[in-house]
Amino acid sequence: MTDLSPDTPALCVVGTVAFDDIETPSGTREGILGGSATYFSVAASQFARVGLVGVVGEDFPAKYRKVLEGHDVDLGGLEVAAGGKTFHWAGKYEGDMDQAETLETNLNVLESFAPTLPESFRSSPYVFLANTEPNIQMSVLDQLTDPRLVVMDTMNLWIDIARERLLEVIARVDGLMINDAEAKALSGEDNLIAAGRAMLECGPRFVIVKKGEHGSFLFSRKRLFALPSYPLDVVVDPTGAGDSFAGGVMGFLAGEHAQRVDDVCNAMLYGTAVASFTVSDFSLDVLGEIDRGTLEERADELRRFVRP
Amino acid sequence: MTDLSPDTPALCVVGTVAFDDIETPSGTREGILGGSATYFSVAASQFARVGLVGVVGEDFPAKYRKVLEGHDVDLGGLEVAAGGKTFHWAGKYEGDMDQAETLETNLNVLESFAPTLPESFRSSPYVFLANTEPNIQMSVLDQLTDPRLVVMDTMNLWIDIARERLLEVIARVDGLMINDAEAKALSGEDNLIAAGRAMLECGPRFVIVKKGEHGSFLFSRKRLFALPSYPLDVVVDPTGAGDSFAGGVMGFLAGEHAQRVDDVCNAMLYGTAVASFTVSDFSLDVLGEIDRGTLEERADELRRFVRP
Repeated sequence: MTDLSPDTPALCVVGTVAFDDIETPSGTREGILGGSATYFSVAASQFARVGLVGVVGEDFPAKYRKVLEGHDVDLGGLEVAAGGKTFHWAGKYEGDMDQAETLETNLNVLESFAPTLPESFRSSPYVFLANTEPNIQMSVLDQLTDPRLVVMDTMNLWIDIARERLLEVIARVDGLMINDAEAKALSGEDNLIAAGRAMLECGPRFVIVKKGEHGSFLFSRKRLFALPSYPLDVVVDPTGAGDSFAGGVMGFLAGEHAQRVDDVCNAMLYGTAVASFTVSDFSLDVLGEIDRGTLEERADELRRFVRP
Repeated sequence: MTDLSPDTPALCVVGTVAFDDIETPSGTREGILGGSATYFSVAASQFARVGLVGVVGEDFPAKYRKVLEGHDVDLGGLEVAAGGKTFHWAGKYEGDMDQAETLETNLNVLESFAPTLPESFRSSPYVFLANTEPNIQMSVLDQLTDPRLVVMDTMNLWIDIARERLLEVIARVDGLMINDAEAKALSGEDNLIAAGRAMLECGPRFVIVKKGEHGSFLFSRKRLFALPSYPLDVVVDPTGAGDSFAGGVMGFLAGEHAQRVDDVCNAMLYGTAVASFTVSDFSLDVLGEIDRGTLEERADELRRFVRP
């Protein structure tokens, strides 16, 4: 591994920054700060310095930039597309809030997103490729200098329309982190355990399946590990839960300079802890009110919660 | 507690004995031995002597009676209804086999089931009321002599049509063991944690929610505990998983003379272990091939599986 310049963030994330309109049984919000890279980086910032790579439009307000900078996120990789509008997503959750119903998606500046990593980001040892088109993920991989741990997400759309290219990307990463429906779609297996094992055959050293309220599941050649979600009797807004989880996992690993499978299992406690705060309010508000100590306490609660 | 006569089983179960027709992606079986009390008692027999209370018709064959007796299940409470036919259920599982589709239900002798416990069963210290009409469950409670631990199951039908009576039964037991859909229907809560807490308010000391492939969840005033299911990449027939789980939990507790909440959490490992064998073949076949040592090994595997 190359020596890091002081400007190199320990962890680099490439993903979306968005304006979200959200409707849940707890209320409605419009134009709130969202996006995979946003949730990821703010969650991860509890553990390590994060560099964010993404694109916004000229309509992206200074106050949202300040939120991210307030969490010490390096915005050197946040492109502002001239004349463009920021990605906008509108969604609704009902009942047990297991799944979002998408009401509207305006890709806007995302349509021509072709990320160029700042020079200082290319040697980041920890890298997370949030869900984007597989060619974008591949181009990021090509810009990296000897990363220690690269983990990626994806979505059903790419599994359906860009499967071969997606598999090429998956073959090049250390870890895959997707939800259960995506795991079944990608592997063609109805059984989640069979799905996890099949995905290991695609190349990654580990696969983490996110199961929402049912927690998360790690598959590796060495061990399997299941972790429930933190028990919450009120979920205000599930948006960003998966990306916060990923941020907690990757942030913890980057902060600890760790990458073994046992470390990843331990990191899942912290991902689960931070995601449990994310969903207890809209947008990122609550993540500004917690600190590392709060997360250690919640991780300890989780350890007790799963001990027979 | 009264002293037990040598004839008194440590554990008594009241439930159904059935002929099942089952269709799963792995195959089709007709007229196989099934029913809640059957699965429960065979699973529990790994840990303690079980007395089964139920009813069959004159068509119930000697070979099925021998299966149960082969597991040392006391059939002194198994009534043979003159001229009657045994309860018959036909069901089908598809895809991830999360839910059975009921193709046919013939209650037959169950329609007039009014269990009378043999004298020797009334002082059983551990009692499980499998899913039956709440008035039947109440009549069993009235026949018991100072039980140490009574746990019950129920189903959506009774939640819908006999809610008040069901709540009266629930108020009299130590533990409630139902699935997640039933927990939400019974409590009126979409959130499972809120549902579990609401059910504790109905009286039981603990509530165990069975979540199928997602494992099980214990609620009590003292602690919460979540346990995943054992990771299986092939499930042949999920029928009886919940009743085997209950049998493992109650059998373990009866065998250990234990009833504290911490004991119940530990017992859930054994319930999960025995259920994982049940679903790996049709009917009870595989439960005849395992022993206590096999279950201890699987419980150890589960302990490693959930350790961060």
